[in-house]
Amino acid sequence: MQADKYVIKVNGNVLRPSVLDVLVNIQDSSPLLEKVKPRKARWSVRASEVSKKTFNPIRALVDSMKLEPNPNKPMIALSIGDPTVFGNLPTDDEVTIAMKNAIDSGKYNGYAPAVGYQTSRDVIAKFYSCSEAPLEAKDVILTSGCSQAIELCLAVLANPGHNILVPRPGFSLYKTLALSMGIEVKLYNLLPEKSWEIDLKHLESLIDDKTACIIVNNPSNPCGSVFSKAHLKKIIAVAARQCVPILADEIYGDMVFGERKYHAMAPLSTTVPIMSCGGLAKRWLVPGWRMGWILIHDRKDIFGKEIREGLVSLSQRILGPCTIVQGALEQIIHRTPQEFYQNTISFLKSNADLCYTALSTVPGLRPVRPDGAMYLMVGIDMKSFPEFQSDVHFTERLISEQSVFCLPATCFEYPNYFRIVVTVPEDLMLEACNRIREFCEQHYQGQEGSQDLECDK
Amino acid sequence: MQADKYVIKVNGNVLRPSVLDVLVNIQDSSPLLEKVKPRKARWSVRASEVSKKTFNPIRALVDSMKLEPNPNKPMIALSIGDPTVFGNLPTDDEVTIAMKNAIDSGKYNGYAPAVGYQTSRDVIAKFYSCSEAPLEAKDVILTSGCSQAIELCLAVLANPGHNILVPRPGFSLYKTLALSMGIEVKLYNLLPEKSWEIDLKHLESLIDDKTACIIVNNPSNPCGSVFSKAHLKKIIAVAARQCVPILADEIYGDMVFGERKYHAMAPLSTTVPIMSCGGLAKRWLVPGWRMGWILIHDRKDIFGKEIREGLVSLSQRILGPCTIVQGALEQIIHRTPQEFYQNTISFLKSNADLCYTALSTVPGLRPVRPDGAMYLMVGIDMKSFPEFQSDVHFTERLISEQSVFCLPATCFEYPNYFRIVVTVPEDLMLEACNRIREFCEQHYQGQEGSQDLECDK
Repeated sequence: MQADKYVIKVNGNVLRPSVLDVLVNIQDSSPLLEKVKPRKARWSVRASEVSKKTFNPIRALVDSMKLEPNPNKPMIALSIGDPTVFGNLPTDDEVTIAMKNAIDSGKYNGYAPAVGYQTSRDVIAKFYSCSEAPLEAKDVILTSGCSQAIELCLAVLANPGHNILVPRPGFSLYKTLALSMGIEVKLYNLLPEKSWEIDLKHLESLIDDKTACIIVNNPSNPCGSVFSKAHLKKIIAVAARQCVPILADEIYGDMVFGERKYHAMAPLSTTVPIMSCGGLAKRWLVPGWRMGWILIHDRKDIFGKEIREGLVSLSQRILGPCTIVQGALEQIIHRTPQEFYQNTISFLKSNADLCYTALSTVPGLRPVRPDGAMYLMVGIDMKSFPEFQSDVHFTERLISEQSVFCLPATCFEYPNYFRIVVTVPEDLMLEACNRIREFCEQHYQGQEGSQDLECDK
Repeated sequence: MQADKYVIKVNGNVLRPSVLDVLVNIQDSSPLLEKVKPRKARWSVRASEVSKKTFNPIRALVDSMKLEPNPNKPMIALSIGDPTVFGNLPTDDEVTIAMKNAIDSGKYNGYAPAVGYQTSRDVIAKFYSCSEAPLEAKDVILTSGCSQAIELCLAVLANPGHNILVPRPGFSLYKTLALSMGIEVKLYNLLPEKSWEIDLKHLESLIDDKTACIIVNNPSNPCGSVFSKAHLKKIIAVAARQCVPILADEIYGDMVFGERKYHAMAPLSTTVPIMSCGGLAKRWLVPGWRMGWILIHDRKDIFGKEIREGLVSLSQRILGPCTIVQGALEQIIHRTPQEFYQNTISFLKSNADLCYTALSTVPGLRPVRPDGAMYLMVGIDMKSFPEFQSDVHFTERLISEQSVFCLPATCFEYPNYFRIVVTVPEDLMLEACNRIREFCEQHYQGQEGSQDLECDK
């Protein structure tokens, strides 16, 4: 112990007293190095604060969960928001042909401008432009996936110490990015009993002088909810009243079921400046290709030159998305048949209906019917499952007993729920629902207490 | 003036007194909003400090330059470090076949891990592994181009207030990234008279307690220089003595001419931890595809778990490079024929020799012979060109009179030089050199003064 204390005194660092320290001390007294400014010449390389603040709550939680499935049942993972993992949702042939044409042309191997080729930005501008919210190429920035789109929007709008308003439950990336930049996250409530509409009073009550933007995610991950035009207008009214810009995460835009209609936010706003983030990932079923975009809607010139130039500057740090995908954009956008989108949506709706219907009659569960995207949230009546301390515990046991993996909604800041991804093949969706039912029936302890339930069985 | 002062008092902001302020003041007194925390409800969206600090000196300088070519001479741009712009350096057929195979497989549409597919990382690890510096997949992080590789390295190694050592002349991205993160840049000198070797004493004198890493760019942009093994060992010795990690920007690795041999830094170091950044961009001639990587060399476990985990965390912000390129990596690396690399290098060497030889006899110019990469630096004897105030002025006039565009080396923190890109077709290289000669002969005013020179003509 005495020796240790001595090391502390000499080196100011208990972690790594080593031979190097000794060498250094000898060298420090060498006349050759006298001109060198003082540096404690021992190895002590620490990770930066930013890297420590960059924290993915899903990864942290999942890494800490027991993920040992029942060896007698094959695993069904309903946890990953990636429509490609089961192989049942390939992209359209026109999309792959577009990519191969871009490669064969030899025209897309060099650097593009950091914000993307002018022609590719023009394609996206025309595709999303409408009379109420016109877009030109200058209003489009191509990014390395929708994640980078969101990162750039936050980076240009907020300084450290500012805050952003984020939905609860909500996609964890917002928080990951914000905290890594020193931006505070304020969570506004979504209301499950109102199909996950925003609690507008709560939203408005959170706004203060340091609020840089409101993130609105519609259709929603993890809820699968789709806001009505009327509700979107009310959100915009709050933003207009408080003069706060909107960051609209619309990556699931147009992925809505049946008669439900999707409304982008920008055409509904006349004054509030909106950055809409989207990409190829979900609608074209190629999330790995990392092609995202920011659409800048600013008809009152509130963002102005300053924000646009800021976005351009920030995009120069990593120089935009893969040029092959940029080169393929025109054909991808123009040639993908309408059928492709319809088939995807029909499949998702059918699976979502199947899952919702099946779980509606499971004791202790309260699924919330989704209207779009690829997800469904299920409430757990925790009182009816006294064995489990939390949604995390509940979903862990669902894995170990039934080999069904759903993300506990604690990942989305929303305890006592879990999220189901509905992109799995239908037979697996059914099988997963049956296993969830079996699991719940085995563990449910209703109002009359556990004894009664045991007898019923 | 009185009115202005009044506005200051009321709003605490002189910049935008507007009609909105008045509206706000009315709303502030409305009972409906009394519960809301105070926010000055007027539109004032300012770009963040980070976006303002993200500054690309090349872009800023070029944007401010007069770029009007002589209408009687077609423009020859020797300014852009992109080997694909003239169409004379296509990538290899095996590279495009690999991409098309990856697309057709349908296996690479989903999300990869943020650090890249394990199999793709394994390919890169094996390709760069050697007995002195072994690599495994865990030591490789795939990134969106070499730019993001450098960004991640800086972001994990340095906190705001730390400093990094950067070569002068050097690639401007280092400074752009560092300043955007609040990291100080200290420039160490390269010595043109010693083929741009590092002034090691100067380098060492800059190191202090806040030094997070030394960036070593070899082969060099903009110099085209290639360090000898002996010189690299001396650089490593400085880093070892001062206990500073090295960030080796080796994107031009293996692009060296004739008998010159390229040495990666990592195999030469036994203790100093090194992050080597590279990518497909230059050697495979596809810079737009944005496939880069970090190779972590840390045989003494100095970076340790903390830095590795930090890199993984940071990579989750934008989730890695395009999965199609990742999927194609194995075939790209294994099937591209040796001939392809050799042909590229022969072409670059031949053009570099041609350019160096031609400019060596031009009055007032001092080209420095390159040994690799795609660049050549040319010193301007400014005293011999009293008409021009700077390298920026010199290169502007070279455009307006001769339609030849070279980057003034002020872009690289090195006035009185300019950089030539040697990837142009041979006939254009020759034509450009002839025009540069004509330009210099017209403006040169030697030791005897301008009058004598006029008479000679």
